[in-house]
Amino acid sequence: MIGQPSDDSLSRPTADDIAAAAARLNGRVHRTPVMTSRALNQLVGTGVWLKCENFQRSGSFKIRGAMNTVMSLDAEAAARGIVTHSSGNHAAAVALAARERGVPAHVVVPNDAPVVKIAAARRYGANLHLCPPGLDAREAAVRGLLEQTGGHLVHPYDDPRVIAGQGTCAREFLADVPSLATIVAPVSGGGLMSGTCIAAASAGVRLVGCEPALADDAARSLASGRLQRNTSQETIADGLRASLSPRTFAILREHLDGGIATVGEDEIIEAMRLVWQIFKIVIEPSCAVPVAAMLGGAIDHGGRPVGIIISGGNVDLDALPWK
Amino acid sequence: MIGQPSDDSLSRPTADDIAAAAARLNGRVHRTPVMTSRALNQLVGTGVWLKCENFQRSGSFKIRGAMNTVMSLDAEAAARGIVTHSSGNHAAAVALAARERGVPAHVVVPNDAPVVKIAAARRYGANLHLCPPGLDAREAAVRGLLEQTGGHLVHPYDDPRVIAGQGTCAREFLADVPSLATIVAPVSGGGLMSGTCIAAASAGVRLVGCEPALADDAARSLASGRLQRNTSQETIADGLRASLSPRTFAILREHLDGGIATVGEDEIIEAMRLVWQIFKIVIEPSCAVPVAAMLGGAIDHGGRPVGIIISGGNVDLDALPWK
Repeated sequence: MIGQPSDDSLSRPTADDIAAAAARLNGRVHRTPVMTSRALNQLVGTGVWLKCENFQRSGSFKIRGAMNTVMSLDAEAAARGIVTHSSGNHAAAVALAARERGVPAHVVVPNDAPVVKIAAARRYGANLHLCPPGLDAREAAVRGLLEQTGGHLVHPYDDPRVIAGQGTCAREFLADVPSLATIVAPVSGGGLMSGTCIAAASAGVRLVGCEPALADDAARSLASGRLQRNTSQETIADGLRASLSPRTFAILREHLDGGIATVGEDEIIEAMRLVWQIFKIVIEPSCAVPVAAMLGGAIDHGGRPVGIIISGGNVDLDALPWK
Repeated sequence: MIGQPSDDSLSRPTADDIAAAAARLNGRVHRTPVMTSRALNQLVGTGVWLKCENFQRSGSFKIRGAMNTVMSLDAEAAARGIVTHSSGNHAAAVALAARERGVPAHVVVPNDAPVVKIAAARRYGANLHLCPPGLDAREAAVRGLLEQTGGHLVHPYDDPRVIAGQGTCAREFLADVPSLATIVAPVSGGGLMSGTCIAAASAGVRLVGCEPALADDAARSLASGRLQRNTSQETIADGLRASLSPRTFAILREHLDGGIATVGEDEIIEAMRLVWQIFKIVIEPSCAVPVAAMLGGAIDHGGRPVGIIISGGNVDLDALPWK
């Protein structure tokens, strides 16, 4: 785990922290729309609402956590700049948040990251620092940058302020569709799911996480009661290759009452294509994972309304997975 | 021109007819959202709003005119069924409108029409009647069906009720974005543009039509003052291959003060891809034509707000024009 020294690696945000994040984000990020379709409802057999973070600034929910953290920093800390590592949407989100704060962003990016996601971070003015793939190279590069700049690390998920920011998504979702009985979200490092858990804790909503079977660390961790890591980076859902941290694992163990559903690669691609076709929206493979779980019957909805967090829409249109 | 015998081939709807259509459509079609993006605004140099008819029921604006017409029929006429011809979105729209009215739909479809669009009409329960490509075969098939069923023809564009229905789109657009100084829409048979012209006539808005250079009958008709036809069906914008009728030509001559901008095929593909990338929405090639005209500087916006009607989102995802 890359992180600044912390004596409280399990601290977590509260619902009040999420409310404060929502106030901080007001006017800085979009209140994204919720979409629904008779065609999907018929296929699934219940009402399904999509919270469309693919329409979010920077193209994913990641801006919520990044913006909340960057805007929380005092002026002196912010001025030294923001450091992060990401192979994808978090990079663009941190770059945009830092630009809006008027401070530099330094992003360590593995040189096998999806081109469109790197391009977005560059467009937002980040300083990109390419490193070889793999956690060791990434950690070394981040440590070097932190020492060199004195900047502030904004971790992609293992940070209470990031988790609080991500939680604002479910908070909006529940406000806009109060009838939701279940919320389903993809799980990677667990920042979005943790924030969702805390935001929904008092709402009496069942929570379900989804993972690709090829990156099922959370499913294995929850089943075994011991934190497991992903050993493969092969899933097409490039946003879901990270593994839980002790912090997000603890939150999920406490709150994720609906468990984790896992789906295969073909199901992910089919669900992605179906959402494009039915909803006329561009979603990335990661968001298709919960849709695939719904379509495959892996989530028991009991005929009651289900909300799915559509996490992002940054796709390389030149390399679509169907052909 | 295929049409039921009419002694008034130039009659046109009024703004009141459009208001009546809006009331008739209320609750039957979506009030589609308007989207905007800083990235596109920067590229174009002014504020651009997209009226997203790709999110409309049946996947295009065509449901407005079809629903307005089908719901206008008296019970006896409706019961004999609806007949139309279309290679695309109008087929699905008529099928859906007829289904909601509870009457049969007969759709003549050229056997080279895009598969996804035919599939949608079939899904909505239409009886499909394939015919060879070309206007003669189409006309013969429609005449045969009209005789056989006694059904009612709902023309894709050359009908005042259809035009009034399409005009509800611009009516909503102006209500939602009153600052619009220009409205830009694609032109094929001219139903959407005619309805837009009439809806916007009293609003002091400049109107611009757009066509592929490969299907520029409206540009040539307006330039010469004589109705011209498209001789090629080669443009990728499969929704824009029809030609104006005397009725729509007359309306455009009177109202289309901004003229017609034409764009090349590569520009269309590039603009389509850009909208998918920036807005995360699926639009069909036809809608990219006005966007391409904006990006190419073909439309003089004077730095004032521009509205573009994004006409539909029915695309064959297995045959995208970029690779």
